[in-house]
Amino acid sequence: MMTESDLPVAQLTPGRWGDPARTVALPAAALEALKHLGVCRPADPADPADRPGLAGEAMELLEKLLGAEHVKTDLETRWGHTRGYSTPDLLRHRAGDTTDMPAAVVYPGSHDDVQALLTVCSERRLVVVPYAGGTSVVGGLAPQGTAFIAVDLRRLDRLVEIDEISRTATIEAGVRGTAAEALLADRGYTLGHFPQSYEGASIGGYAATRSSGQSSAGYGRFDQMVVGLTMATPRGTIRLGRAPMSAAGPDLRQLMLGSEGTLGIITSVVLRIRPRPVERSFEGWRFESFDQGLAAIRRLAQDGPLPTVLRLSDEAETAINLADPNVLGGGSGGVLAIVGFEGEHTAVRRTEVADVLAAAGGEALGEGPGETWREGRYRAPYLRDPLLDEGALVETLETAGFWSALPALKAQVTEALVTALTGQGTPPIVLCHVSHVYETGASLYFTVLCAQTDDPIGQWQQAKSAANTAIAAAGATITHHHGVGTDHSTAYAAEVGPLAIEALQAVKHVLDPNSILNPGILISPQREDGSPA
Amino acid sequence: MMTESDLPVAQLTPGRWGDPARTVALPAAALEALKHLGVCRPADPADPADRPGLAGEAMELLEKLLGAEHVKTDLETRWGHTRGYSTPDLLRHRAGDTTDMPAAVVYPGSHDDVQALLTVCSERRLVVVPYAGGTSVVGGLAPQGTAFIAVDLRRLDRLVEIDEISRTATIEAGVRGTAAEALLADRGYTLGHFPQSYEGASIGGYAATRSSGQSSAGYGRFDQMVVGLTMATPRGTIRLGRAPMSAAGPDLRQLMLGSEGTLGIITSVVLRIRPRPVERSFEGWRFESFDQGLAAIRRLAQDGPLPTVLRLSDEAETAINLADPNVLGGGSGGVLAIVGFEGEHTAVRRTEVADVLAAAGGEALGEGPGETWREGRYRAPYLRDPLLDEGALVETLETAGFWSALPALKAQVTEALVTALTGQGTPPIVLCHVSHVYETGASLYFTVLCAQTDDPIGQWQQAKSAANTAIAAAGATITHHHGVGTDHSTAYAAEVGPLAIEALQAVKHVLDPNSILNPGILISPQREDGSPA
Repeated sequence: MMTESDLPVAQLTPGRWGDPARTVALPAAALEALKHLGVCRPADPADPADRPGLAGEAMELLEKLLGAEHVKTDLETRWGHTRGYSTPDLLRHRAGDTTDMPAAVVYPGSHDDVQALLTVCSERRLVVVPYAGGTSVVGGLAPQGTAFIAVDLRRLDRLVEIDEISRTATIEAGVRGTAAEALLADRGYTLGHFPQSYEGASIGGYAATRSSGQSSAGYGRFDQMVVGLTMATPRGTIRLGRAPMSAAGPDLRQLMLGSEGTLGIITSVVLRIRPRPVERSFEGWRFESFDQGLAAIRRLAQDGPLPTVLRLSDEAETAINLADPNVLGGGSGGVLAIVGFEGEHTAVRRTEVADVLAAAGGEALGEGPGETWREGRYRAPYLRDPLLDEGALVETLETAGFWSALPALKAQVTEALVTALTGQGTPPIVLCHVSHVYETGASLYFTVLCAQTDDPIGQWQQAKSAANTAIAAAGATITHHHGVGTDHSTAYAAEVGPLAIEALQAVKHVLDPNSILNPGILISPQREDGSPA
Repeated sequence: MMTESDLPVAQLTPGRWGDPARTVALPAAALEALKHLGVCRPADPADPADRPGLAGEAMELLEKLLGAEHVKTDLETRWGHTRGYSTPDLLRHRAGDTTDMPAAVVYPGSHDDVQALLTVCSERRLVVVPYAGGTSVVGGLAPQGTAFIAVDLRRLDRLVEIDEISRTATIEAGVRGTAAEALLADRGYTLGHFPQSYEGASIGGYAATRSSGQSSAGYGRFDQMVVGLTMATPRGTIRLGRAPMSAAGPDLRQLMLGSEGTLGIITSVVLRIRPRPVERSFEGWRFESFDQGLAAIRRLAQDGPLPTVLRLSDEAETAINLADPNVLGGGSGGVLAIVGFEGEHTAVRRTEVADVLAAAGGEALGEGPGETWREGRYRAPYLRDPLLDEGALVETLETAGFWSALPALKAQVTEALVTALTGQGTPPIVLCHVSHVYETGASLYFTVLCAQTDDPIGQWQQAKSAANTAIAAAGATITHHHGVGTDHSTAYAAEVGPLAIEALQAVKHVLDPNSILNPGILISPQREDGSPA
């Protein structure tokens, strides 16, 4: 059986998503649809303008510490470490905007290298940005208003240890998702963590941003897989996790997970692993409406059994995203759910799940739509590049809330996006799906597509700001799995409140007293009165 | 079906565990066994000596704030709020030791009362100790070296709201475990949280100490049930939890859970609830050895399916604790596992679990031993009082680690306890069981029984210190569900390291700048060089 671990470890290109060998062209029907949105081709991309790289004493210091071959300041390397993969990031890349380009890229080879680097950089007040997979979509690689050094962790690439009795694996932060699966597969195991960024993202990034993968119903979120971690900070190393769970004070692992490189650099994690699945099946199910489908998947989330993958597209996403428009019976409407099973002896669970879905009004569509989704599961971000080429604006955002809040949350975020973009003369298509379920609630993931204005970054910022306001007003969280970065730092501060932010700042001051780690990311710069700037 | 929610809400007595209507006498065989340990009856308990209560301006202030009827300084009330229920606590109680007695007991009636109280107490530098169920067994109610006010939360007794769609309940901190179950049962729900302290402990205490109940295999730990919380701090109120899970920064709920009243007073929590079970069955299983049983329950924890309750006693506990010594076939040795099922349609799961246990060498003993355990599940702490009366020293401690570490951890902790107590002329009996399992590891719970020396508190402290050293040496956590309190604060600091402790102290300084909350609990007082005192 071909599995996720067989996906090749790709060499990613900056400014366009994914493995160049796997890029996709837009279908003719999509090009036709873009015309209806009033899309026209923008100017060609510009080359990046060079800016001075790191030099002088600081440069010599880093070269002495890591070896000259592990410190780079050439334009290509630095440009390749500039920002992440949000649509604004890609637009800035196309504009040749080097304002957020690092002054140098360094490649430490071990935890001790990272620890020594942070100690030295703290002494010299050299700002650093941890760079693992580089796939942030929330501005997590662009610190605010300062020159910085990107710390590329790719040389921390080892599967350090597997404990087969405890079913744990110690894996270094720079191991790419695909590489981790390949290393584990050799020993018969899997993490089961497959976010859409799987081809690019890394173990350290998963941990630092609380990633959640497409198989979260079966394998859990990444933060639920972490049982231990090692983090280098400017003040020294922190090692946490002596047991799966403990009552020894607050769970400090959960303070470091999601800290997005502002408190330290996670250099390795101890992860719960599982045997590689020997069976796999993915099915499509049709429901009359999103509300009906939502009630059905809630039934599974609350009373079980849970499949490994559980997703539900709304009417708009179902209509537009289906590779085969005949799947739902020739345009009969309705919504599509994807239900995937992996493991051993999945037949009983499949039958039980089918009983629940059928009782909730679902119609089984068989494995066709399931396999279509599975085969295309990493393709969506590839489509964005040709869409941007054509002059479309396309971006995604996600939130999560409790089940009872989801219908209003969905309606209000959609309304906010439509109003904000229509007001700019670019009425959008807004698609939505649920891709992560819990007993008490679920995520909502929105995709927005419209024509670009002359200022597509400003255009999106206005829409995004309206969506953020709607999310906050509905009492939901500003991000389910993309993280905070710089894009969400103001909304995050409002979400947890000024006291919690002050507490986080105090933790940061202990671990990073000279504020060299990711300034402006996660925690907003503070005004003198203590409120976020 | 009689369930946990039918257990009456008892009026507990200080200094002796539990509901006076449910106390138990020692069986004659137990009395005989005690003779072999060289036990003889100690001196009769002494009356508590009164110490001055709170008076003057501070008293007037509190009376004005909460109403005179909600501020008490009489000896009986204060003595009833002195320490918790560890064996040293009970021994100090018997000695009439009032050194840790509060100067006053106050009864706020709402979150706003608690918030106002903390604001005023912070201004006046009045030290407060949150008191919910009062069942700490780690010195969590005895701050170090200072007069203090006990904040009894029993008036925060409301089930505020049930969200049936999201399956959450908002419950105030002062609601006793038994009361919470009764309130939820009226609506058809359960928390499923049944620690051995169930009759006495409260919702707020569960949250503040990361409690784990006997049904944790099926319902999870208490910290896994909390999706939201409200906490009053001297600086203001913190509200967390807009979704089941989020990538919006660190999970700050997990920073407050386990903070043991040092960062603020949790006044209510939003909890995941489940439908009341309609079926129940508890079975006994016999294994040849603890190691064989451990491999069997690990199989269930890692590959499923999990029963609701899963416990495994070692050879010593199996031999001594069985109500019916014939359960294991007339002293044939071996070890006893208890496997309990609650829910709906449990038959399939029972069969699957039985297949796994039988394949792992288990012998089914039927429901007899299971029901015996279930009926006696809250009885063990009741036995401690008559054992202490007779002059025995009996105490428990727990730890947790990864599966591969458990055999050595068990051997080394046992060895440490035996050596330390035998060296004092009181060779002990040491029993052990596993009662909480995870995919990557499990808890170990030890019970120690020996004769008291002339200084039973010092005697136990020496044994406990040896056990702590063994736990740390084995790389395990100092507590799985009892918490840190004052008893474990030094071991806790060693476990997470000085940087993490400094980070926690910084959080405390933000939220409790005048250090009025639980001084000396959880976080050791700091020496000038930053190391724990």
